Amino acid sequence: MMTEPLAPGSTIGILGAGQLGRMLAQAAAKIGLRAHLYAPEPDSPGFHVTPWHTCAPYDDKAALGAFADAVDVVTFEFENVPAEAVAFLDKKVHVRPPARALAVAQDRLRERQFLQSLEIPAAPFVAVDRNAPLEVALAGLGEPGGGQPYFLKRRRLGYDGKGQFKIHGREDLEDAKAWLGDGEAIVEHGIAFDFEFSVIAVGGLDGACLFYDPSRNEHVAGTLRKTAVPGGISQQEQRMAQGIVHRIVSELNYVGVVAVEFFALRSTEGQTRILVNEIAPRVHNSGHWTIEACAVSQFENHIRAVAGWPLGDTARHSNVVMVNLLGDEIQRWRELLVENPGRSLHVYGKSSAQAGRKMGHYVDLAPRS
Amino acid sequence: MMTEPLAPGSTIGILGAGQLGRMLAQAAAKIGLRAHLYAPEPDSPGFHVTPWHTCAPYDDKAALGAFADAVDVVTFEFENVPAEAVAFLDKKVHVRPPARALAVAQDRLRERQFLQSLEIPAAPFVAVDRNAPLEVALAGLGEPGGGQPYFLKRRRLGYDGKGQFKIHGREDLEDAKAWLGDGEAIVEHGIAFDFEFSVIAVGGLDGACLFYDPSRNEHVAGTLRKTAVPGGISQQEQRMAQGIVHRIVSELNYVGVVAVEFFALRSTEGQTRILVNEIAPRVHNSGHWTIEACAVSQFENHIRAVAGWPLGDTARHSNVVMVNLLGDEIQRWRELLVENPGRSLHVYGKSSAQAGRKMGHYVDLAPRS
Repeated sequence: MMTEPLAPGSTIGILGAGQLGRMLAQAAAKIGLRAHLYAPEPDSPGFHVTPWHTCAPYDDKAALGAFADAVDVVTFEFENVPAEAVAFLDKKVHVRPPARALAVAQDRLRERQFLQSLEIPAAPFVAVDRNAPLEVALAGLGEPGGGQPYFLKRRRLGYDGKGQFKIHGREDLEDAKAWLGDGEAIVEHGIAFDFEFSVIAVGGLDGACLFYDPSRNEHVAGTLRKTAVPGGISQQEQRMAQGIVHRIVSELNYVGVVAVEFFALRSTEGQTRILVNEIAPRVHNSGHWTIEACAVSQFENHIRAVAGWPLGDTARHSNVVMVNLLGDEIQRWRELLVENPGRSLHVYGKSSAQAGRKMGHYVDLAPRS
Repeated sequence: MMTEPLAPGSTIGILGAGQLGRMLAQAAAKIGLRAHLYAPEPDSPGFHVTPWHTCAPYDDKAALGAFADAVDVVTFEFENVPAEAVAFLDKKVHVRPPARALAVAQDRLRERQFLQSLEIPAAPFVAVDRNAPLEVALAGLGEPGGGQPYFLKRRRLGYDGKGQFKIHGREDLEDAKAWLGDGEAIVEHGIAFDFEFSVIAVGGLDGACLFYDPSRNEHVAGTLRKTAVPGGISQQEQRMAQGIVHRIVSELNYVGVVAVEFFALRSTEGQTRILVNEIAPRVHNSGHWTIEACAVSQFENHIRAVAGWPLGDTARHSNVVMVNLLGDEIQRWRELLVENPGRSLHVYGKSSAQAGRKMGHYVDLAPRS
């Protein structure tokens, strides 16, 4: 494993050029590293912030080969990069985070089995496949209890609530089966959680593991709407969550930023339980606030990690609320700035604003409490 | 005058693509505006952060014309843009800050006369030209007093202490004349100041004028070494300085960021005087700290101003020290990060590190006092 840090002027290859790739490229440029983005979509927003890009499908071996030759290390902005592309690149150039982290995170079944193997709590689940069709799986899993539905989740390509189907009872079974077709999935218990939060961590090449403060997240229709720090997460919840993330980082020899989403369940007696909802092996929407509220953002720390640089402090100097701008909401940019002149706005430069699409976000700071 | 703000997706044309153009381009991208940089040097660091650039001399009318057609507004990163280029562009597209501000700031004589016309205090000076050769000029100016030298300054192309010649006495006269040749200049009194500080302000299209907190600056060999905020500038000094900057902004109908450098002279009786040293009609090295210590940086506010957007709050959430990395000092990047993990580093991506060249900077934050 390379232990020497990449010198300023080196090139970070990034698979994916959406808003995350865009912010990663900007973080790289800040510290004198070049960003070469790779994505199939010609109007990728990441292509607007660097002169170096490759626009080609992820299965274009010639393009991937030329990309590998042009960069000093490869990373990715999203977990659904085809495994074959990563395996191909991995033979030619360092890929960070490691391919195994990607393999675990891009398959919900493998992710759940990975968590199980580490005895990390998550919602009860079973696999759904040819050997265990939906009825059989549901029978094996038992009732969620508390009036919660089941969630049927495709093994692959799920994000922002996509790839999920809610099963409230027997009456939804036929629709669920039609929705799934012959795809593979897991089915799990819905959880009556009190709130959702996430922990953003960064693993260094030297084994260091640093945590940003946990953030409380609000979702609407499966998409993140709002993140707040501090978010009323107790010391105990924070300690438990960081312990879990640390085990994940260690087990995967993880290098780079990882985000872990949690459900918190508080009993009336004041006891608390936390369950892992999802592992994202990348910079994360619920960490955008680190750009404004920390000296070193999640994006810069990810770049530093994959470049073998010393990690930056994850301390937060301000309280912060981040709000996503979805679809048409981006049209309100001027009003949002007038409403609060201390507001920091990000606009991703996407050409079309379909309903629910993440078009930008804003961040409001307040003195640290 | 255009009063509608440029919509996200519009293009800001920037003359010059050094570190200031680079940081302006990054600020534009953050808020969804595109940056098209224009500079004659092929290895310009600004070219690394945008796919849109023109590499051509400033007197290339065809290139300037195509540039004007490709952008929605033009601004500049430095005051020594040839006036002809600006005049040419000004006929085709809005140029902000206004051409007059550039004309005033790029000619030291005109700058001093402008200050005089507003009764703004600066060092005593006289013009040196064919009608008033150096000896005549010096005789007219009188002695600086207090053991201070004279400063002979070329009217044009002076920055970072360049274009200056120190005259300690009669014995330097011949060298000074040889240095100047038949160039035009001013000669002024050296000032026994107690410290230097600068005020960064931003003027909006609507006439708004906002100030960042004043910063205390330390120079070494004419180049900025260090900027600190707060910098021990008194309330009275700050008020006087902001009043002066406000008059400059109003008089020039200034749109964008302007930096004004001041000398502060404190008497033993506790009285204080301030003199303007220089007006920079652009974002300024002594305002780099605003990236880390404010929600909206000088770079973003400059872009907002030239795009006709609402200005952002200039409040500072942290105390801050900025240190420039000159020449070979950039080699110490790793050590600097290890020394203080909370440090924010900027590396400009310049290909060669000549002695004294600004290669990067770092910023250390501390809780606001």
